[in-house]
Amino acid sequence: MTTGEQGARVVRAPRGSERSCKGWIQEAALRMLHNNLDPEVAERPDDLVVYGGTGKAARSWEAFDVIVRELRELADDETLLVQSGKAVGRFRTHPDAPRVLLANSNLVGRWATWDEFRRLEALGLTMYGQMTAGSWIYIGSQGIVQGTYETFVAARKAHAARAPGGGRWVLTAGLGGMGGAQPLAATMAGMACLGVEIDPARIEKRLRTRYVDERIDDLDRALDAVLESVQRGAPRSIALCGNAADVYPELVRRGVTPDLVTEQTAAHDPLVGYVPPGLTLEQAAELRARDPVEYVARAKAGMRREVEAMLAMQRRGAEVFDYGNNIRTCAMEAGAEDAFAIPGFVPAYVRELFCQGKGPFRWVALSGDPEDILATDRAVLEAVPGDADLRRWIELAEQKIAFQGLPSRICWLGYGDRAKVGLAFNELVRAGRVKAPIVIGRDHLDCGSVASPFRETEAMKDGSDAIADWAILNALANTAGGASWVSFHHGGGVGIGNSLHAGMVIVADGTEAARQRLERVLTIDPGMGIIRHADAGYETACRVAEEKGVRVPHRAG
Amino acid sequence: MTTGEQGARVVRAPRGSERSCKGWIQEAALRMLHNNLDPEVAERPDDLVVYGGTGKAARSWEAFDVIVRELRELADDETLLVQSGKAVGRFRTHPDAPRVLLANSNLVGRWATWDEFRRLEALGLTMYGQMTAGSWIYIGSQGIVQGTYETFVAARKAHAARAPGGGRWVLTAGLGGMGGAQPLAATMAGMACLGVEIDPARIEKRLRTRYVDERIDDLDRALDAVLESVQRGAPRSIALCGNAADVYPELVRRGVTPDLVTEQTAAHDPLVGYVPPGLTLEQAAELRARDPVEYVARAKAGMRREVEAMLAMQRRGAEVFDYGNNIRTCAMEAGAEDAFAIPGFVPAYVRELFCQGKGPFRWVALSGDPEDILATDRAVLEAVPGDADLRRWIELAEQKIAFQGLPSRICWLGYGDRAKVGLAFNELVRAGRVKAPIVIGRDHLDCGSVASPFRETEAMKDGSDAIADWAILNALANTAGGASWVSFHHGGGVGIGNSLHAGMVIVADGTEAARQRLERVLTIDPGMGIIRHADAGYETACRVAEEKGVRVPHRAG
Ligand SMILES: NC(=O)c1ccc[n+]([C@@H]2O[C@H](COP(=O)([O-])OP(=O)(O)OC[C@H]3O[C@@H](n4cnc5c(N)ncnc54)[C@H](O)[C@@H]3O)[C@@H](O)[C@H]2O)c1
Ligand SMILES: NC(=O)c1ccc[n+]([C@@H]2O[C@H](COP(=O)([O-])OP(=O)(O)OC[C@H]3O[C@@H](n4cnc5c(N)ncnc54)[C@H](O)[C@@H]3O)[C@@H](O)[C@H]2O)c1
Repeated sequence: MTTGEQGARVVRAPRGSERSCKGWIQEAALRMLHNNLDPEVAERPDDLVVYGGTGKAARSWEAFDVIVRELRELADDETLLVQSGKAVGRFRTHPDAPRVLLANSNLVGRWATWDEFRRLEALGLTMYGQMTAGSWIYIGSQGIVQGTYETFVAARKAHAARAPGGGRWVLTAGLGGMGGAQPLAATMAGMACLGVEIDPARIEKRLRTRYVDERIDDLDRALDAVLESVQRGAPRSIALCGNAADVYPELVRRGVTPDLVTEQTAAHDPLVGYVPPGLTLEQAAELRARDPVEYVARAKAGMRREVEAMLAMQRRGAEVFDYGNNIRTCAMEAGAEDAFAIPGFVPAYVRELFCQGKGPFRWVALSGDPEDILATDRAVLEAVPGDADLRRWIELAEQKIAFQGLPSRICWLGYGDRAKVGLAFNELVRAGRVKAPIVIGRDHLDCGSVASPFRETEAMKDGSDAIADWAILNALANTAGGASWVSFHHGGGVGIGNSLHAGMVIVADGTEAARQRLERVLTIDPGMGIIRHADAGYETACRVAEEKGVRVPHRAG
Repeated sequence: MTTGEQGARVVRAPRGSERSCKGWIQEAALRMLHNNLDPEVAERPDDLVVYGGTGKAARSWEAFDVIVRELRELADDETLLVQSGKAVGRFRTHPDAPRVLLANSNLVGRWATWDEFRRLEALGLTMYGQMTAGSWIYIGSQGIVQGTYETFVAARKAHAARAPGGGRWVLTAGLGGMGGAQPLAATMAGMACLGVEIDPARIEKRLRTRYVDERIDDLDRALDAVLESVQRGAPRSIALCGNAADVYPELVRRGVTPDLVTEQTAAHDPLVGYVPPGLTLEQAAELRARDPVEYVARAKAGMRREVEAMLAMQRRGAEVFDYGNNIRTCAMEAGAEDAFAIPGFVPAYVRELFCQGKGPFRWVALSGDPEDILATDRAVLEAVPGDADLRRWIELAEQKIAFQGLPSRICWLGYGDRAKVGLAFNELVRAGRVKAPIVIGRDHLDCGSVASPFRETEAMKDGSDAIADWAILNALANTAGGASWVSFHHGGGVGIGNSLHAGMVIVADGTEAARQRLERVLTIDPGMGIIRHADAGYETACRVAEEKGVRVPHRAG
């Protein structure tokens, strides 16, 4: 598809303090829908594709037009229903109810496969909503950088706890679409980084966008640069053009043990995403075309070598983790029997945050004015003082992150802090210290709204990985609390059949009614993460529930 | 399980005008939960099983106790979260939000199988909620009498149209929680009935409640009784204790072709709901415990025999239909390749009603006083005058239906009428013409809240059978409208993996706030049926939408 779907055109969110809808909540939905399709934000806006493969914001351009018209007409006591990117109904509810309810890509379990999904999509009956695409709260690549930052910070702390003075540098590989955020996230997290990437074009791109600082292909010199920057306390990121299946074992041979070790080659797809060692890119392309079976065997053999090196580094004290690309499975198939001694990143680092109700909290300035985000940045640091990593992130983000579309910010906040920050934002709007309302939302990679046994709910303590009631309860409870729009999705992140998850967005428009809704929803939403993990038996969640007064009925007297 | 789960005891709903909860909505949830487990209502109350195989109202007796305590403490601006029969959270919402939100049996698609469900159930992590069991609005067999009556009437008409003078007797099987309504519905619809049931206790219960007229175990004598009653024009219902997998083929062998043929064993759950031929009940229980895989194989083989007999009867002119228990799928898996030549009852008879927003509307008198139901009966006939079928139903129901547990009534009402009746009930409560509030709910076999390709959404005009967004939107929209409790379930009726569906209940407590909520929810809920069927291209739904002013955005100007 080069010309895009019928009716394709360039759209961009309206800016400023004037609205074309009957209320600010409707206006917020209208602007965020447009913003998701802004060419600065979306990957293929002509096809309504926002990100993540084919994650869309509306089913078709015709459907987009109808949604926009309905939003413009929507009264303050009405609710619009959107079924996989198509407006299908409008009912009278009440001012404290959501203005929009969305359901994306949902299929009955027996039919929850890509094949059936594609068949129904071709019939015009559904759309792939990914996570924040179909729920109108995508904000561009800032989200990826921040998620990686958060993971690296957690891994750094884990290493430093075991090895005092540790957590100073990261070895990783793969600087592609997702993985390319790693060098920037590492330096933002206060660590140096050596990133091994086989494709010079990918390194070029990351140098251009300043996500990586320098390219050094000689291993000695690259290591020197990394260690020197560690010494100086001025973290730099170095890209090395090479094959991870060669470089990782070579580091083991030399006795070099990085503090953190991970990798983000696209190992989940061994025919396309992993270049076997011993081949140039051209030779790899030739072999892939000529003998795919041989290619996959050699790719997996390479992964085995790489993973065995990671295991050796782990034994020598490095903090090693799988970053969600399934390399453990491929390596094990090729003979690395201990591959699963390497933990996945969610159980290793993120779950502990989930137990505190922490997850990717994000917001957008509807005015379109970057000044408004600076005002919110200050408000966050005032509302949540004394969190050094948060402060560092916000300050670095202000320097290093270019806005895409409407100015936005993301940071991980937990139970208690989210409500505090939401109320602070509402106060900014009320007092006229920002020029228009602020939209608050989150990713679906989240503590209490996702059932996803290959990622967010991998290896739950009680075995409840596939239990999806929690995601449903999250959507219902946020609706009951008065979120501005609520969505429920199937298949985001890990594909059709593999996940169910809910999204919520709430608008701070400066009114007293919004204040009450913010307090409720920003308490309920992270609270779900705490009760979900408390029910699964996580100590941290039980402790936080007790400390913060989150009611867990089966533990209550 | 003979002694029931730990903590088992007899419970029964509190009656009267005094409440032990902080508000009538909480009190209604408390009474309905108890009522679902009343021995008059539930099939196996000791095990918390209400109906439909293993459809439960709470996960365990301990979980029951915690729910009850939480309901007693629940404030008028709080919401209780129930995850598969276990109270897991309580959050502050607001008075117009539901007091309880429930999610039952939900699993991520790839794991949506009975095996995985059973594994998780054994770990204590989930429960099977069926439809109205886990959503606390089961009312006993009356609940299905009306639907069965309407279905039998429609099938009788279809048979009579093909075979003048036909439509005089029904062969069916399974006289359990739902299926036990069939003999009564048949005679109310003017037909004789032969009902095959393997469990003598089930027959005993139906004789006691006068749902079936007589038990005759000898096939010759049973047939004689049926045919004689047909001859006399005085329809009688006969229960025969036997295995349908034996009796149906035997009838084919004898050349007996009933006018209508269906069956309601709990075939959706082959390990629990279908007794394999050749085994006594005791032997079946023993095999089920000892070798579940073998049990399921033999049950499915029995279903194949039964379904092949049904197909033979169909070829000989009988009106044969699947009554929503998924027996066709199991039979096909066991080798009955033509199983789907038997139509589902929904596309055959019910979809036209769904297009009008019609479905099983039910209510319960919280006072416990049967007089209150008589008052509501009169109110219905006043609010919806001039509907002869409705009047006949209510009059027959008053004569023939024995109440189980709290007095209740059901009738099928469409868009517009439901809101009218809800407001009339609220006025009865306000004016003190009934002794306590009235609880209004519905089954999940419904026009706009179910995705179930083997039943409610079988053979949709646009092919959207498996699209589940509508069920989700229904739960979200009823939550937004202010239903008293809302539930979202997986696997009801047709088993794990095969359906997703939502329930809602709303309490008429005589207040002005309740009046507004009733008007909203009883408009939204049937309205979802109209927009769902309009979107699928059904003419009737499009016409009704236009006549009644239900907004369908893609058809609006
Ligand atoms: N952690 C998460 O939350 C998360 C989220 C989404 C995706 N992922 C996974 O992360 C992985 C990376 O995603 P992406 O979007 O960056 O993929 P991508 O295809 O854009 O990038 C992969 C990169 O790896 C490089 N590469 C391949 N083989 C190599 C080798 N042997 N040595 C060195 N470099 C090599 C490629 O040249 C490419 O630049 C995927 O498997 C994806 O599924 C993780
Ligand atoms: N059509 C509908 O609207 C609708 C609604 C709800 C449920 N259902 C389905 O109807 C089915 C019956 O539900 P129920 O609540 O009555 O279940 P149930 O478990 O209470 O009753 C099933 C009955 O079938 C009997 N039985 C089992 N195997 C038999 C055999 N081989 N021969 C004769 N009798 C046998 C059992 O003894 C039992 O009495 C379920 O599959 C349910 O999902 C249909």
